[in-house]
Amino acid sequence: MNQTILLEINNSIATLSFNRPQAMNSYNLELAQAFAEATETVKNDPTIRAVLLRGNGAMFMAGGDIQFFSQHLDEMADQVSVMMPYVKQTVLNLQTMSKPVLASVHGSVAGIGMSFMAACDLVIAADTTKFTLAYGALGISPDGGASYFLPRLVGTKKAMQLALFSELFDAQTAQEMGLINWVVPEAELNTQTEKYAQKLAKGASLAFAEMKQLINQTGDNSLSEQLELEEKSFTKCAQSDDFKEGVRAFLAKRKAEFKGL
Amino acid sequence: MNQTILLEINNSIATLSFNRPQAMNSYNLELAQAFAEATETVKNDPTIRAVLLRGNGAMFMAGGDIQFFSQHLDEMADQVSVMMPYVKQTVLNLQTMSKPVLASVHGSVAGIGMSFMAACDLVIAADTTKFTLAYGALGISPDGGASYFLPRLVGTKKAMQLALFSELFDAQTAQEMGLINWVVPEAELNTQTEKYAQKLAKGASLAFAEMKQLINQTGDNSLSEQLELEEKSFTKCAQSDDFKEGVRAFLAKRKAEFKGL
Amino acid sequence: MNQTILLEINNSIATLSFNRPQAMNSYNLELAQAFAEATETVKNDPTIRAVLLRGNGAMFMAGGDIQFFSQHLDEMADQVSVMMPYVKQTVLNLQTMSKPVLASVHGSVAGIGMSFMAACDLVIAADTTKFTLAYGALGISPDGGASYFLPRLVGTKKAMQLALFSELFDAQTAQEMGLINWVVPEAELNTQTEKYAQKLAKGASLAFAEMKQLINQTGDNSLSEQLELEEKSFTKCAQSDDFKEGVRAFLAKRKAEFKGL
Repeated sequence: MNQTILLEINNSIATLSFNRPQAMNSYNLELAQAFAEATETVKNDPTIRAVLLRGNGAMFMAGGDIQFFSQHLDEMADQVSVMMPYVKQTVLNLQTMSKPVLASVHGSVAGIGMSFMAACDLVIAADTTKFTLAYGALGISPDGGASYFLPRLVGTKKAMQLALFSELFDAQTAQEMGLINWVVPEAELNTQTEKYAQKLAKGASLAFAEMKQLINQTGDNSLSEQLELEEKSFTKCAQSDDFKEGVRAFLAKRKAEFKGL
Repeated sequence: MNQTILLEINNSIATLSFNRPQAMNSYNLELAQAFAEATETVKNDPTIRAVLLRGNGAMFMAGGDIQFFSQHLDEMADQVSVMMPYVKQTVLNLQTMSKPVLASVHGSVAGIGMSFMAACDLVIAADTTKFTLAYGALGISPDGGASYFLPRLVGTKKAMQLALFSELFDAQTAQEMGLINWVVPEAELNTQTEKYAQKLAKGASLAFAEMKQLINQTGDNSLSEQLELEEKSFTKCAQSDDFKEGVRAFLAKRKAEFKGL
Repeated sequence: MNQTILLEINNSIATLSFNRPQAMNSYNLELAQAFAEATETVKNDPTIRAVLLRGNGAMFMAGGDIQFFSQHLDEMADQVSVMMPYVKQTVLNLQTMSKPVLASVHGSVAGIGMSFMAACDLVIAADTTKFTLAYGALGISPDGGASYFLPRLVGTKKAMQLALFSELFDAQTAQEMGLINWVVPEAELNTQTEKYAQKLAKGASLAFAEMKQLINQTGDNSLSEQLELEEKSFTKCAQSDDFKEGVRAFLAKRKAEFKGL
């Protein structure tokens, strides 16, 4: 793996850090390949129980690499066809891997950075973070799933507004519209992020995997179909060690010690 | 019907009261059977124009019967397969019966209690009510449709947060996130509940039945399909006595007297 | 085209004005035909880059023509079958035409006026505007897509409340629930509307067309399907003159001059 994304694994938590700080972590082919590969790695590692996605340097991600685009304006169709398979693989991995993914964002989140953030299960943001879809201002439509996630998170009217006007908005606004989960003072971002990541990694990982799948895929299902899927998941979890521990801990009024099994 | 749920019918309103107050109305096999049967009864009774769901004692429903689970931890797959058909039948009945269902909640709403509440069409809550999904803390995934209803009501990010962290939240928060309709002072819960139930029972029941079906099933349909369904419903209602009365009352600037026909 | 709706085209902006002010712009057969025809015209005119929908007189639209209904109460099925094809064509045109549609509302928005407003991509409202679904109070179910749009914009619980109780609510409330985008002082409605319409008409119209289609149709698609559609749109826009201009303007830190090509 090239060094445009760094992967560290500690205490069952995989931390993925965008690592092109000199280029505002903008998304180029190298990063696209490394990010897709890294999500594949954490997806397939059964010892990982929680994933954290963040950016090194001044911001989470500024969007696509516009300098690169400007040098290839007459061969964009080719460039897109090379890049897009990595985009799709990465977004699908984030949404479907059987462990929760927490995005911790700061500085700026723009363009495809918004799509990657939205593809994560949970988002914590520094209160100073600025967000923008940016695509419209560049004369292009979104990639990375923004047109899937945003209407579902903020409604179609607000999604249309953000897309058509490339509005810049702050963390408080992002939380109020349902785009992110938590806003914390910038100075506390790392400790608060760590706290949530730890909770995820020490949770009932089997149940979390079922919950994630049920919630992320419910949009494709009727109520009746979803009830069938819930039954399958429930039956699976009900036979796990973690459920036995959860029930015993609850009745003993003590904190459960989940092993993810 | 056993006595774990009580059914009273007055003035075209069916009131279903969970009646295991000594066990916090926790959901066990007896209650599962009685609740499924009761929803079947009210579904099939054409004289009932509104349904009210509430809990006797200190709370609406504490969730599943964990004491029972603890005694059957090695045979959970069998227990689930006995219980789940009742869960599914009940939730589908609440969502599809051709009359509005109002949940009136107080005390605590936890676990499958959240699913049943969410499966109702409207929810009124005492301001002192506390809510939690609870499943994650027990090491199990949701049943009763929580993974269907919550993402649609509060968005996937917030649904994931509530599911993974078993967060406890209050009535004001529940209302702000779109999970419930009204919050009233605890002392006024019964009178306010009665007021809404009366309005529902005296409304244009035929139109209400069509509205309920259109709104609860729109998630399965494209815009074009939904427009076709709206036309069928509209045509049906347009030929009803209630529509004639509605139009005449509107023009005479008097209150309409609907008969549900 | 009869004069119940007026169409003006200026600077690539098509303005459609309901023009039955003496009848509160209520929706009758004449208006239904003219509105369907007008949306067909603007849909098919490639020089139009933004559409504005508004009402002449005291309000946007009071709903269906109840006076007319009262005169045809015994032949409603026939009346509905004549009217409804125009309703469906109009709503589908508003949602699918390849240019953004901005509704500018004032006074009252009721009944099918709510459906037409919701079918537009963006909504700006005077702070004095009042909204109501109204159907339930008349004893009829919604037409024009209200049962499709509202659950997606405000959630099923709130949609059910608005439908069953025909609640009257104000512009601030409409914005908070996600039904509309902007609320401005009544005296500023026209200038603010003009400002947004101009921005839309001077934007990257090709990208806007793709964004509109992606956002309005995402509800029918799985994530994987949506990612495929995003790739097609992105590839198309990436080869456009507007994208070249957008990239060059971004790097030169100047405002892009989009031509919609």
